Amino acid sequence: MKKLISLTIIASLIFSCDKQQPKNVLKMDNERIIEKKVDSLLLKMTLNEKVGQMLNIGLPSILKGDYWDERDSAEFDEKKFQKFIVDYGVGSIHNTPQYLAGRGEWYKIVKKIQDASLKNTRLGIPVLYGIDNIHGANYIKGSVLFPHQIALAATWNRELSATNGEITSYESRAASLPWNFNPNIDVAINPLWGRISESFGEDPYLISEMGVAYLKGSQGENLQNIESSAVCLKHFIGYGAGRNGKDRANAIIPENSLRQYFIPPFKKAIDEGAVSVMISSNAVNGIPCHINKHYITDILKGELGFKGVVISDFSDVEFLIEAHEVTTSKREATKMAVNAGLDMLMNPYDIDVVDYIVEMVENNEISMERIDDAVTRILNLKFHLNLFNKPYNNPKDFPDFGSEKHIAANYNSAAEAITLLKNNKAVLPLEKGKKILVTGYAANSMNLLNGAWSRTFLGQDTKYNDPSKLTILKAIEKEVGAKNVTYVEGTNYTEDINTSKAVSQAKNADYIVVCIGELPATEKPSDINELDLPKAQQELVKKLAIYKKPIILVMVQGRPRIIREIEPLADGILMGYYPGQEGGRAISDVLFGHINPSGKLPYTYPKYSGNAVTYYHKKADIRDVNWGYDGFYTQFEFGHGLSYTSFEYSNFVIEQDTLSGDEALKISVSIKNTGNREGKEVVQLYLKDLVASVAPDSKRLIRFEKINLQPNETKTIEFTIQSADLKFIGMDNTWTVEEGEFELQIGGNPKELFKKQFYYKE
Amino acid sequence: MKKLISLTIIASLIFSCDKQQPKNVLKMDNERIIEKKVDSLLLKMTLNEKVGQMLNIGLPSILKGDYWDERDSAEFDEKKFQKFIVDYGVGSIHNTPQYLAGRGEWYKIVKKIQDASLKNTRLGIPVLYGIDNIHGANYIKGSVLFPHQIALAATWNRELSATNGEITSYESRAASLPWNFNPNIDVAINPLWGRISESFGEDPYLISEMGVAYLKGSQGENLQNIESSAVCLKHFIGYGAGRNGKDRANAIIPENSLRQYFIPPFKKAIDEGAVSVMISSNAVNGIPCHINKHYITDILKGELGFKGVVISDFSDVEFLIEAHEVTTSKREATKMAVNAGLDMLMNPYDIDVVDYIVEMVENNEISMERIDDAVTRILNLKFHLNLFNKPYNNPKDFPDFGSEKHIAANYNSAAEAITLLKNNKAVLPLEKGKKILVTGYAANSMNLLNGAWSRTFLGQDTKYNDPSKLTILKAIEKEVGAKNVTYVEGTNYTEDINTSKAVSQAKNADYIVVCIGELPATEKPSDINELDLPKAQQELVKKLAIYKKPIILVMVQGRPRIIREIEPLADGILMGYYPGQEGGRAISDVLFGHINPSGKLPYTYPKYSGNAVTYYHKKADIRDVNWGYDGFYTQFEFGHGLSYTSFEYSNFVIEQDTLSGDEALKISVSIKNTGNREGKEVVQLYLKDLVASVAPDSKRLIRFEKINLQPNETKTIEFTIQSADLKFIGMDNTWTVEEGEFELQIGGNPKELFKKQFYYKE
Repeated sequence: MKKLISLTIIASLIFSCDKQQPKNVLKMDNERIIEKKVDSLLLKMTLNEKVGQMLNIGLPSILKGDYWDERDSAEFDEKKFQKFIVDYGVGSIHNTPQYLAGRGEWYKIVKKIQDASLKNTRLGIPVLYGIDNIHGANYIKGSVLFPHQIALAATWNRELSATNGEITSYESRAASLPWNFNPNIDVAINPLWGRISESFGEDPYLISEMGVAYLKGSQGENLQNIESSAVCLKHFIGYGAGRNGKDRANAIIPENSLRQYFIPPFKKAIDEGAVSVMISSNAVNGIPCHINKHYITDILKGELGFKGVVISDFSDVEFLIEAHEVTTSKREATKMAVNAGLDMLMNPYDIDVVDYIVEMVENNEISMERIDDAVTRILNLKFHLNLFNKPYNNPKDFPDFGSEKHIAANYNSAAEAITLLKNNKAVLPLEKGKKILVTGYAANSMNLLNGAWSRTFLGQDTKYNDPSKLTILKAIEKEVGAKNVTYVEGTNYTEDINTSKAVSQAKNADYIVVCIGELPATEKPSDINELDLPKAQQELVKKLAIYKKPIILVMVQGRPRIIREIEPLADGILMGYYPGQEGGRAISDVLFGHINPSGKLPYTYPKYSGNAVTYYHKKADIRDVNWGYDGFYTQFEFGHGLSYTSFEYSNFVIEQDTLSGDEALKISVSIKNTGNREGKEVVQLYLKDLVASVAPDSKRLIRFEKINLQPNETKTIEFTIQSADLKFIGMDNTWTVEEGEFELQIGGNPKELFKKQFYYKE
Repeated sequence: MKKLISLTIIASLIFSCDKQQPKNVLKMDNERIIEKKVDSLLLKMTLNEKVGQMLNIGLPSILKGDYWDERDSAEFDEKKFQKFIVDYGVGSIHNTPQYLAGRGEWYKIVKKIQDASLKNTRLGIPVLYGIDNIHGANYIKGSVLFPHQIALAATWNRELSATNGEITSYESRAASLPWNFNPNIDVAINPLWGRISESFGEDPYLISEMGVAYLKGSQGENLQNIESSAVCLKHFIGYGAGRNGKDRANAIIPENSLRQYFIPPFKKAIDEGAVSVMISSNAVNGIPCHINKHYITDILKGELGFKGVVISDFSDVEFLIEAHEVTTSKREATKMAVNAGLDMLMNPYDIDVVDYIVEMVENNEISMERIDDAVTRILNLKFHLNLFNKPYNNPKDFPDFGSEKHIAANYNSAAEAITLLKNNKAVLPLEKGKKILVTGYAANSMNLLNGAWSRTFLGQDTKYNDPSKLTILKAIEKEVGAKNVTYVEGTNYTEDINTSKAVSQAKNADYIVVCIGELPATEKPSDINELDLPKAQQELVKKLAIYKKPIILVMVQGRPRIIREIEPLADGILMGYYPGQEGGRAISDVLFGHINPSGKLPYTYPKYSGNAVTYYHKKADIRDVNWGYDGFYTQFEFGHGLSYTSFEYSNFVIEQDTLSGDEALKISVSIKNTGNREGKEVVQLYLKDLVASVAPDSKRLIRFEKINLQPNETKTIEFTIQSADLKFIGMDNTWTVEEGEFELQIGGNPKELFKKQFYYKE
């Protein structure tokens, strides 16, 4: 496994060098060599060959049987194979054979495809294979299943995000899959959305930082390295803002919000070298993203200078007809998308779009320049990934696949993600030698720990679970001995199973650990109509509370489900998110104090379903019924998370009272571990613009650093900010900075931030 | 009382004649005369006199005591009176003396002010007195209290809206109050919003039609008529779209939504002659409406050609500092608002803004042109209202004030508003001679029937209730005799009072009438955090259901509170909205069949708080968990409402298959009353654009007509549409029409519309 890359910006050199002087002349040479290769190859290509490159089909399209058939092996349909791979020369493939293949099977699949592409097509262009590596290389037997992205965000640890990207890339490449449809850098502003678990949460800055770290881990220093994978930023743009919270629902995003909140993570990741972007399935303001030329061509490829590949999401050209009703003809839909700037069409079932595009180019409905732009980007990526020379990899070259080392990294991510939301009377860590009742939907389920995209799309199938991994229950039993643990299921996701039995056992318990949970799901199947935790699960907690025994609520969920009525009944609350395969162990280790929790919420946990606002709301949003400003009713705030030790902040210093022009302003603060055990703290720095010509946000995260402190140890953290950090999108929809007072707020507890003001002068 | 005006567009001639040839030369002469008077007066005015006109203060500012003191009489503070009215010559006043004054008292108040304005100021300019006539002239003792606007919308009867406007105007003028801060033409898209009750609901077309009818009723043919009042359209713009549903919360409205949904009611009402507009307190996309020059000057005064007065809402210049944080200085806030295009500042407490404006004009921070524009508009309105000659009215000239005629009109509005949402096994009308249990928070309350803005701001005070009016309980008792009625309160708004007693009585009842309700409130106090009907009220219904007696749910509420769990327990459901003073009678008369209900919901009644979408959603919004399109989970649809008779639609004819260019297309349908009693039906015509370059709405209401049918009677209704009806806001944010297939959907039941397609050709 390659070493974790340094933080020098290297990936950004891959395509674009207009901002930085090349530090690596060899790299530049390589860029020029690839450019020449692409140009030269493009000159040789027929229109049909070019357009073939723009097609991404699903693997099952060239397998025997119907597309969605369940399989237990991947047998190619030779006729379809010949047509798709050889005759049409499709440029790209995605998806699985519809069963969980191991590395050896993946090797065979990819080898057969690449051998045909390279040897049986006129120009020998390899296929680009992409896969949904959502939390680890989840479609390869034996890979590690990391915590989901929302948990990764909760670590506030860039290094862990990079490691996740790096290991995912490594394990994916071990199966010859070089293109990763991740990270998700959607800004998740609607807590109803079912894919919050796959995102880095609600904050554009945290998303950018964690996204870029993942990207660097995945792409590494050089994509030619067989351990590096190409990322695909998704989804451009506004997927996390569906007005009614439903998957792929219309998002309402005015231009200033788009630029202030949604674009920055993409800009940052593109500046840092992201090589592909997936367009969002949804419409924004009624305009499907897939036909929005303003978004794709003007903003993404223009303003943001993106030189990589723009790919559609699954069947999105067809959804233009069926879901968005912008045309009734697939030919027309294809034209709209290609002319908007789409380079590659994920058209899973057929090659029909190739025929349409060829015809439309011949008919001058699509320009040859547009085709050349698309194909240049695709070939460029293939050369960067060195697929012409190394179209597939020998699994044996990846000895760390699923290794103890990777498992340890996975465990570390889960351990740092778990967020201690409440700890009344220091009920946690739990004392040893006590009787524990473990109950709840999530208590004994690997599937809940893993969430969606775990061996199967929805992650609900138990047949692929690894029997060596521990559920929460099993990990607790291992910790304290099975004889001290009573387990009663209690409920499933929405219905009572045996709550009364659980209650009857509560009487004899010293502690009650209730593991509530959310059904693993993604995309449409993850839609919900009520944000409240399902009633049956709430009833379980309410009924367990009658004996006044200490209740520890462990939450295994992708979204912040409303728990207003049961929160007061719990003495301790742990948020586990979807913590992945090592999550059971990690949760148990936090419960018993082997791990000192250090996760911080990456979203606002609302108290009421009818008042869900992000932490960066406007002041007018939180006026209350008494005309005061106490209406930000959260259950837990963004950035909240407790520790088993305590931290004291002091010496918060802003170097100068006034920041002028482009000067830098240094900020420092000292943090002391005042408790009696080692612990990690996330030092969060927020900016509050006190007055602005557009109503300013309540505050904005602008820096953070996670530090480790021994008991009594003190560290001083320094941040540097500049006028760029003070900017907001003004009335004219461009970034602007205004003279005036600003407030910096620093700390690890969003309810107790230390505040100091400074003046900005142009 | 003047006769209901005809539908000819007359009001629009008042200010602007660029579109129409004058039909009334005298009117034009009058226009020219007024223009000359204004110009001549303006020439004589000093800067201070001009700016004084731009100030609107609250009446309590010139009364003895502190502003918010409760009073039982209006005693002027002579010093303040002299300063505000004479020295500063304030142009306008609003608000009440903080007690319920009768016409005689109002006469004295207004007379004293106007006499001083006319006689003791240099130029003798009368004051313009404005008042919140939200549902009738609600701040005048003895006036009729109409159903709230949402109920008026539910009548779908333009004539009733006009009558409401007309009577409100008449009764307001009887107290010398010529300026009505109504109608509300906000597009209410968030069901959490507390002022839905004051709006015409969610549909831009229904809002436009009902709003214009109200406007015509209020302004009449000529504002010089002492029975006519000036309207004030509100709120410009987006008040009903607060992202988190809170009063005055930031609304997120992209330019195309603004133009497609929010502007049309304003455009229509301005075209029809509305003489003033109130700016919305909220921000849209973070930009407070009060400083949004693009909205006020470019769109409202520019594109929409509005020539009337633009006024702020209460204290909104101060809210720019406190709530919106766009400045810390009131002087600066004043400048921002005036320069954005505000003509009159509702600055309740003080004259400080006058001093600021004068200073800023002298300092060239505000132009004299801007001041002259504002003052011209204000003077123009005062001349139109003939205030120079008739500054106050003798209450004796208004013999119909609070008359039986007005009460009858009020009753008619309530009767047509009440919406029969469910009537299983024809449980309604109720049989006579049965035992009835009446229970619930709304059963015996006048305040709930009246809602907010009833004698007091929040309408919660019982001391002003008219003892001659009947609550629902009293009306039922009157109908069937008190001996047949048992009444148990059950709950208050949020808490159980004696549910168990109600349940014990249920055993002996033949019918259970449960009157659930929402606390009367408006603005901030109307904010809620959960859309669900409060639990205690739901529990009451659930517990009452155990005896399986027929349950009739009567809902007295401003918003569609979620009733998913209790709806199945009710056999009959009546929506009463806030039906006003005659609402108890009207509800009882519907229950017992004296009135055949004909109301139709003016909003979508959602089934889940986490899935509230308007009926004009996008198809992608209603994709369900199975990737189908069944995800529009409503409790009841927009336009839904049952009758005690039945209607049959036939002969739905579209004159031609193709509509070309600017041709007219005739549509006709026959409706037969197939039941055995007279009834009213709302014939609704919707348009579905089958394909458009921006994802089309599911459907759009484009015409409606309410008709009355005797048993077996058939009427044929004809509508004419043109290409203008097919327009939508395209990608370039302007109105556009595209060739292609359209579908017309017609009927009285939104679940059973009759559909036919036609083709539009340019």
